[in-house]
Amino acid sequence: MTLILALDFGGTKLAAGLVNVGSRKWLRYERRLSPANANASTDLEIMRSLVYSLLEDTKPGAIGVSFGGPVDASTGTVRLSHHVAGWENIPLKGLLEEEFGVSVGVDNDANVAALGEHRFGAGQGYDSLFYITVSTGVGGGWILNGQPWRGAGGMAGEIGHIVVDPAGPVCLCGKRGCVERLASGPYMAQNVREILDKEPPSRQVRQVGEVLRGLVGDNLTLLTGQLVSEAAAAGDDLAKEVLHKAAWALGVGIGNVANLMNPQRFVLGGGVTKAGADFWQVLRQVARETALPEVDFEIVPAILGDDAPLWGAVALAEMDN
Amino acid sequence: MTLILALDFGGTKLAAGLVNVGSRKWLRYERRLSPANANASTDLEIMRSLVYSLLEDTKPGAIGVSFGGPVDASTGTVRLSHHVAGWENIPLKGLLEEEFGVSVGVDNDANVAALGEHRFGAGQGYDSLFYITVSTGVGGGWILNGQPWRGAGGMAGEIGHIVVDPAGPVCLCGKRGCVERLASGPYMAQNVREILDKEPPSRQVRQVGEVLRGLVGDNLTLLTGQLVSEAAAAGDDLAKEVLHKAAWALGVGIGNVANLMNPQRFVLGGGVTKAGADFWQVLRQVARETALPEVDFEIVPAILGDDAPLWGAVALAEMDN
Repeated sequence: MTLILALDFGGTKLAAGLVNVGSRKWLRYERRLSPANANASTDLEIMRSLVYSLLEDTKPGAIGVSFGGPVDASTGTVRLSHHVAGWENIPLKGLLEEEFGVSVGVDNDANVAALGEHRFGAGQGYDSLFYITVSTGVGGGWILNGQPWRGAGGMAGEIGHIVVDPAGPVCLCGKRGCVERLASGPYMAQNVREILDKEPPSRQVRQVGEVLRGLVGDNLTLLTGQLVSEAAAAGDDLAKEVLHKAAWALGVGIGNVANLMNPQRFVLGGGVTKAGADFWQVLRQVARETALPEVDFEIVPAILGDDAPLWGAVALAEMDN
Repeated sequence: MTLILALDFGGTKLAAGLVNVGSRKWLRYERRLSPANANASTDLEIMRSLVYSLLEDTKPGAIGVSFGGPVDASTGTVRLSHHVAGWENIPLKGLLEEEFGVSVGVDNDANVAALGEHRFGAGQGYDSLFYITVSTGVGGGWILNGQPWRGAGGMAGEIGHIVVDPAGPVCLCGKRGCVERLASGPYMAQNVREILDKEPPSRQVRQVGEVLRGLVGDNLTLLTGQLVSEAAAAGDDLAKEVLHKAAWALGVGIGNVANLMNPQRFVLGGGVTKAGADFWQVLRQVARETALPEVDFEIVPAILGDDAPLWGAVALAEMDN
């Protein structure tokens, strides 16, 4: 039986799993937080220790790797990490192939999670799908004709930076009204803070943000996307407004993508997509209204959760082998 | 030597060409206007007469067809024509295969033109490209991995109906600020008319639309997208404003598509793309600003012109054979 080793360099956490080809159950599995002052060397060292603890005396037949940042999948070279220093141009595939003497596939987490959901999750049986993660950022990965589509330069899937509202707030990328600027967790929290800052105190305590203030007191820097979702579920008007705008932005983005690429399914993962029924209802309705009537599609939640990158790495290793 | 027969049902015109496999020169070629009260039967009758006049006593080895409207390319069945009545659910591939006893490929004009530019035009040597036609409508066709990508339901490529300005004017499709609503020829003319209608007469004759009025007098219904382009080239401020907005809309659309799919090239055809250097400059700059810095692409003019659908039909016939 061939063993598959799956690795997830997640930015804030590191995980490794070992599985028999064809099995859906981890033989062994380890997960660690990346230390506060992590760099590429410390992350690699921690991952090596996880791997050797997992492997004991066995040898994997193939290795798949999910990396939380841009990767040149054709060479398996990391471009950089937005979270951890020192990853620029690290030939991760080469390093691992040299150390373990087996074939290694490396890709970015959105592409790998798309593959994971396609092979083992909410995309099983669908030859064309777009996976979207809505979390601290918004990213995506394509499956077309049953295969990953990475784009000519490996940059496909960046739904987070398509513009849905040219009059919207300015994103880190410099543009106004990107999907990520309106729908990512940290930006939702920022949007609540910005609206509260503008309100006169009388209105602040009266109507909007009441539940939110109950959650974080006066320290608005503690706000997170998850707290915005919770406050919206508890009926906070301001939180509902910001969450609806996020769902609207995602809905317009998805409807536009449907018109452009006409995939069978959209699979949505990441913390923000757990915001509840209202969020999903707005998202689905706006996407349906944005797409042409003749364009059919479904929008469904991802089902692999936090393990999507690891299971995707398994699929990547099996595919490359 | 195998003969390829290429047919173009263009909505307002019908064309047919005959070529040897591998050749880039028509052996014979015929083109007719579709009559004013055309329906599917009269179009088919005219096309049959063109074909028999072309074929004389020879027999084609394969037939490729470009159709100006939505087509189910897998079955070769026309869904409908937006220009000519009676095309609903006509099994065009089946009819032609029965009559000529050879394999027939049928697809919509944007997909076929994309294939034509890919095999014989501005997309030669590029495995991933998006062809966009900007004319009376705005449509697109994909080549990915060197093959057409039509979408799960054959509806991919509808860049004309992605939303770039949710506060923009209402499109025929019901949404606001679609690319087509801002960038198609007829809508550019309408935008000029709408702005002029709102202006007080004093300002109308003074500053804006002066050149435009010189072209059409007081009869603004005579305005066309081409006249708007000509007036812009002659320095008319209003025409320039409307044309720049069209270029902006296309630029945002293309930048968004680049972020999503990361193709190597965008190939642009259709009358509006002949609007001149200013149009191309705005379009390229906005697309570059909309795409992430890491996303590389080129935007180039199509080179097959009015014959793109026919040459695409040749490529389709060769591919299916």
